[in-house]
Amino acid sequence: MQFEKINGLIDAPFTPFHENGDVNLEPIPRYAAMLKASGLKGVFINGSSGEGYMLTDDERRALTEAWIKAAPDDFKVIVHVGSCCARSSHQLARHAAECGAWGIGAMAPPFPKIGRVEELVKYIEEIASGAPMLPFYFYHIPAFNGAYLPMLDLLKAVEGRVPNFAGIKYTYESLYEYNQCRMYADGRFDMLHGQDETILPSLAMGGARGGIGGTTNYNGRELVAIIEAWDRGDINAAREHQNFAQEVINVICRYRGNIVGGKRIMKLIGLDLGPNRTPFRNITPQEESAMKAELEAINFFERCNKF
Amino acid sequence: MQFEKINGLIDAPFTPFHENGDVNLEPIPRYAAMLKASGLKGVFINGSSGEGYMLTDDERRALTEAWIKAAPDDFKVIVHVGSCCARSSHQLARHAAECGAWGIGAMAPPFPKIGRVEELVKYIEEIASGAPMLPFYFYHIPAFNGAYLPMLDLLKAVEGRVPNFAGIKYTYESLYEYNQCRMYADGRFDMLHGQDETILPSLAMGGARGGIGGTTNYNGRELVAIIEAWDRGDINAAREHQNFAQEVINVICRYRGNIVGGKRIMKLIGLDLGPNRTPFRNITPQEESAMKAELEAINFFERCNKF
Amino acid sequence: MQFEKINGLIDAPFTPFHENGDVNLEPIPRYAAMLKASGLKGVFINGSSGEGYMLTDDERRALTEAWIKAAPDDFKVIVHVGSCCARSSHQLARHAAECGAWGIGAMAPPFPKIGRVEELVKYIEEIASGAPMLPFYFYHIPAFNGAYLPMLDLLKAVEGRVPNFAGIKYTYESLYEYNQCRMYADGRFDMLHGQDETILPSLAMGGARGGIGGTTNYNGRELVAIIEAWDRGDINAAREHQNFAQEVINVICRYRGNIVGGKRIMKLIGLDLGPNRTPFRNITPQEESAMKAELEAINFFERCNKF
Amino acid sequence: MQFEKINGLIDAPFTPFHENGDVNLEPIPRYAAMLKASGLKGVFINGSSGEGYMLTDDERRALTEAWIKAAPDDFKVIVHVGSCCARSSHQLARHAAECGAWGIGAMAPPFPKIGRVEELVKYIEEIASGAPMLPFYFYHIPAFNGAYLPMLDLLKAVEGRVPNFAGIKYTYESLYEYNQCRMYADGRFDMLHGQDETILPSLAMGGARGGIGGTTNYNGRELVAIIEAWDRGDINAAREHQNFAQEVINVICRYRGNIVGGKRIMKLIGLDLGPNRTPFRNITPQEESAMKAELEAINFFERCNKF
Repeated sequence: MQFEKINGLIDAPFTPFHENGDVNLEPIPRYAAMLKASGLKGVFINGSSGEGYMLTDDERRALTEAWIKAAPDDFKVIVHVGSCCARSSHQLARHAAECGAWGIGAMAPPFPKIGRVEELVKYIEEIASGAPMLPFYFYHIPAFNGAYLPMLDLLKAVEGRVPNFAGIKYTYESLYEYNQCRMYADGRFDMLHGQDETILPSLAMGGARGGIGGTTNYNGRELVAIIEAWDRGDINAAREHQNFAQEVINVICRYRGNIVGGKRIMKLIGLDLGPNRTPFRNITPQEESAMKAELEAINFFERCNKF
Repeated sequence: MQFEKINGLIDAPFTPFHENGDVNLEPIPRYAAMLKASGLKGVFINGSSGEGYMLTDDERRALTEAWIKAAPDDFKVIVHVGSCCARSSHQLARHAAECGAWGIGAMAPPFPKIGRVEELVKYIEEIASGAPMLPFYFYHIPAFNGAYLPMLDLLKAVEGRVPNFAGIKYTYESLYEYNQCRMYADGRFDMLHGQDETILPSLAMGGARGGIGGTTNYNGRELVAIIEAWDRGDINAAREHQNFAQEVINVICRYRGNIVGGKRIMKLIGLDLGPNRTPFRNITPQEESAMKAELEAINFFERCNKF
Repeated sequence: MQFEKINGLIDAPFTPFHENGDVNLEPIPRYAAMLKASGLKGVFINGSSGEGYMLTDDERRALTEAWIKAAPDDFKVIVHVGSCCARSSHQLARHAAECGAWGIGAMAPPFPKIGRVEELVKYIEEIASGAPMLPFYFYHIPAFNGAYLPMLDLLKAVEGRVPNFAGIKYTYESLYEYNQCRMYADGRFDMLHGQDETILPSLAMGGARGGIGGTTNYNGRELVAIIEAWDRGDINAAREHQNFAQEVINVICRYRGNIVGGKRIMKLIGLDLGPNRTPFRNITPQEESAMKAELEAINFFERCNKF
Repeated sequence: MQFEKINGLIDAPFTPFHENGDVNLEPIPRYAAMLKASGLKGVFINGSSGEGYMLTDDERRALTEAWIKAAPDDFKVIVHVGSCCARSSHQLARHAAECGAWGIGAMAPPFPKIGRVEELVKYIEEIASGAPMLPFYFYHIPAFNGAYLPMLDLLKAVEGRVPNFAGIKYTYESLYEYNQCRMYADGRFDMLHGQDETILPSLAMGGARGGIGGTTNYNGRELVAIIEAWDRGDINAAREHQNFAQEVINVICRYRGNIVGGKRIMKLIGLDLGPNRTPFRNITPQEESAMKAELEAINFFERCNKF
C-alpha cells in the first residue's frame, strides 16, 4: 500500500489530567484549535509526551475519541497504540480505525526488551493488522525502550508482512541512518524526523518533509518557521529559529524534560493540563517560577504558540 | 507492619494459553497441586515467567481468581500487579486483596525507565496502598527494566511511606548487596533469593530462608533439595543438586530462556501450557525435540517435578 | 590563548606496518603528498585510525617525527598524544612541540573510565601542559571510551585551567550538543566535526568550517566536495557527494569498519599499509576481493583519492 | 601444561608513589613482609589496584624487579602485563619471566573494546607467548573494560592456542558462570575468586581454593579467616568475618573505592603509599579524617593487617 506522506510538523500532545489524576477531556478542542493555528498539521496522541503508557486502555480510547472529534479540518489524528500487550494494542488499533483516525503508530515495547528485528516485526504485524487500511508508523525511540535495532533492516523485514507499514517516526540522533532509510526503496517510506533540536540539519541532509515534535506544543510556530525559512532559501533565518528552539530545549532539560517541564509550560501559555502521572515527579511551584523566569529571559513568551 | 517471612521456595508459574492465544484457566488446579507436591510453598503469579506484562488487566484478574481458587491448603498466592500504569496496578492490588491473595508484588516499570529511588518509592507507594493489609514485595530484576538502583537505599526510603513493604524478590547477581539488605534494620525485611542457579551460595552467605524460582516449575524438587541438604549439613549433596540445577539452566539458555524454553518443558513433563505471546518467538517442533534430547542426556526426566 | 581555527578537512591517517608488525615509516612522504593533493589540510596522527593506543611511546615519537618531516607546505600535523598514562602523554605532548607539530590532542582514557568532568579536566590539564604553546583539541569519541560527558560542561570547566584548550574533535551524533558548543562563549572554541557521514547537516546547522575525517584517507576528494558545493550554494551537489560518502561507509561497515576495512582500501588505491595490530582481525584475501567488488559497484575507484 | 593451583589468597598491591608522582620502590620490602605475615600467599602486581595502566613500561619493569627481590620465601609474584599495546605486553611478559616471576596475567584491553572471544584469544596468545613457561591468568573484570564475554567460551577457545593458560581471576558477580568454569574440563583451570565481598558464597558453591583480593592489602587477616573458618566447618565464624569484610568495603565505597580510598587506608595502618595518579581524585585530608572515624566505629584498626 502507498499512503500520502506527511508534509510539515505533527504535534505529540500532552494528556490533560484533573488534579485528582483523572483524564480531563475538556481542554482538547481548544488545544487542537491552537495547534492548528500555530501551523501544525495534526497530532500523534497517546505517545510518550502523552504519557500513553501510563494510561489505561479505556482512557486511551476516550482520548482517541475526543481528539478525533475535536480535530479541525485537514488536521490528522495519529494514534499511538503501542503497549507491552500486543493484544491490547491490536484492539486499540481497531478502535482507532473505527473512530476515524488518520493513522496509527507504536514504539517497541519496553518489556520484554526487543533484541531482534524478527521480534519487532512480529510485534508490529500483530498491531498493524488491527487497522489494516491505515498507515502504520513505527516510533523509533531507543533511549526509551532499549530497542537499538538497525532501522534499515526493519524496513527490509516488513516487506510482505506489514502491508500498511508507512514509515518511521525517527527519534534518534543518527542522521546517517535516517538518510539511508529515507533513500531506501526509492524513498518509499515516510521518514518523520522526531527531534526538534535538529530539524534544520535533517532538512539539509535530505529533503525531509515531515516531522513529529514534542516542543511543538508551545514552540510550534518557531519550529514551523525553520522549515519555511529553509524552503525559501533563507539559511540564516532557519538557523536563527533552530537556535532559538535549542535555547527553549536547554531550559526544559533543566526541568526534567518535555514530559514534565514542557507540560508545565502549557500552563504558562494559557492551557493548564494538570499534573503528570506516577512515577514522574511533578514540577513544584518554585520550579515553575524559576522556569518561567528562564523562559522570559529568552523572550519565549513573545515567540511561543498563542491562543 | 511486620509480616510472616517466607520459608522455602515459591514458584513463578507460566500462564497457560490456548492455541489461539486466549488465556486458558483449565490447567491451573492440576498445576497448583503438582507444585505443592513438589515441595513449593506457593506461587508468584503474573510476573515475568507468567508473561504478566503481556496480559490485559482483565486477564490478570481472571488468573488471580483462578489461582486463589485452585490453591491447596497452606499454599501462598502472591500476585504480581506491576504495570506501566500505576493506576491500573493500584486497582489490581485492590482486586488481589479482595480475592484473598496472600501478598502482592511489583517490579519497577520498564517505561518510563526509573532512574531515581524517589521515583520508585512513589510508584510503590501508589501500588502498595491498593492492598494495605497485604505484604508488598518489590521485585528487583534490573536486567529486565533497567532499574539499576541501590536496594539498601530503597529499604531506607520506604520507611514511613509504605507500611506494608515486606521485602524484595532479589533477582540480581550481587550477593554482597543481597546480604547487606538482609542484615539491614536487624533483618526486618524478607529478602527472597531470585536466581535458581545460586541458591546454595545465598544460603551460605546469610541464612536466607526463602526464594522465588522460575525453574521450580519443572525442577522444583531438586531446588528444594538444595535447601534440605544444606539444612542437614550435607554440603556435598547440596552442591550436587545445585550443579544439576545449573545443568538444567544451561539447556534452557540454549532455547531462549525460561519464559520460552522453560515453558515448553512443562509440555514435556505432562502439562501443555500452550504458546508464548508476542513478541516471544515460540519453540519450534525441531527445537522441542533437540531440547528434549539434551534434557534426557542429563537424566532430567527422572529428577524433575512429577504429576 | 586564541588559536587559528581550522578551515577544511584534516585527515586521521592509518599507521603503516611491515608484515612482521613493525612500524613502517617509508610510505609516509607519499601518503602525505597524496592527502595534500586530495584537498586535505593536514593530519591528526596516532589517533584511533592510526591505532595509536596499540603503539609504544617510542613508535609514536618516530611517527610524529616522520609525519612532520614529510608534511608538505601549509599542511598541519596534529599529534594525538592520549594514553592511559597521563605522564606518558605529557611527555609525548612535549615531544610533539619540540618536533614542530602544529597542535596536539587526546581522547579520554578508556581506563579508568572517566565518569566526571573534573577527572577529564585533570587529565587534560596534565597533558596539555606538556605543550603549552600549541592548541590542544579534546577528541570526543565516547563510543570508544565510554566517556559520555556533557561537552558544554567541559568547555566551561577548562576555563582558567587549560589556557591552550582550542576545541573539540566531535565524533558523536548529537548535532544539538555540537551546535551548543559551537555557539558557546561567542564561538571561541574550534568545533571540528568528526563523522564523515554527516558533514552536510553539520554545515547546515551552524557554519562549521573544519572537520577531521577517517574516510578522507581514500575518499577525501568527495568529502571536500561536500563543503565546496555547500559554499557555492549547490545543495543538490552537496547531497550527492554526501550520499556517495555514505555509500562508501556502508561498504566499510560490512568489513569491520574504517580501522580494518578502510585501511585495506588504501592498498586497493595503491598504498599498501600492511596489517592491523592485535586485537584487530585482519581482512582476509577473500574479504578483500569481496570488498573491492562492492566498491567497484558504486564506482568508488573513479572518485577516490588519487596518487 | 598443568600448573600448580593457587591455594589461599593473593594480594593485589597498590603502587607506592612519591609526593611528586614518581614511583617509590622503597616501601616494597616492608609491604611484602606485612602481607606474608597477614596470611597472603603472594601478590598480583601492576593490576588495577596497582594503577598498572597508569604506569610506563619502564616503571612496570622496575616494580616487577623490586617485588620479586622483596618477596619472602614461598610468596608468589604474579605480574599483570596487560596494556592496550599487545606488543608492549609481550615484552613485559618476557621481562617478568626473566626476572623470575611466578606467573603473569592480563585483563582485556579497554581499547579497542573487545567484542568477540576470538579477539580476546588473539590478544592473550600474543601476550602469553612472551612467557611460555609461566602460568597465564586472564583477569576478567568487565566492569572496567567492557569485555562482557562468556568465560566458558574463552576456556574452550584457548585450547591448543595458549598452552600456558592457567585460569581466570574472576572479578564479576556471576557465581553461576564461575562454577561452570570451575567444573569445565574436570576442573582443569584455576578459577581465582576476585571479589572480597563474596568469598564465603564462592567457597560454598564449589570448593574454590584461591582468590585474589584488593582489600587484602589492609584487611587480609579477616579475609583469610573466612577460608579458615569454612575449612574447619564453622559457618557462623565464616559469616562473621565475611560480614565484617563487607562493612569495611561499605566504608571504602563511600571514598571512591579501593584504588583511592583503600590506598589511603594503608597510610592509616602505617604504610604511606602516596597519592594516586591522574585521573583519580585523591582523598583530601578532611575525607581521610572522616574515613578514619568510620573505620574506628567498626573497630577496623583492631582487626586489620599489622606491621
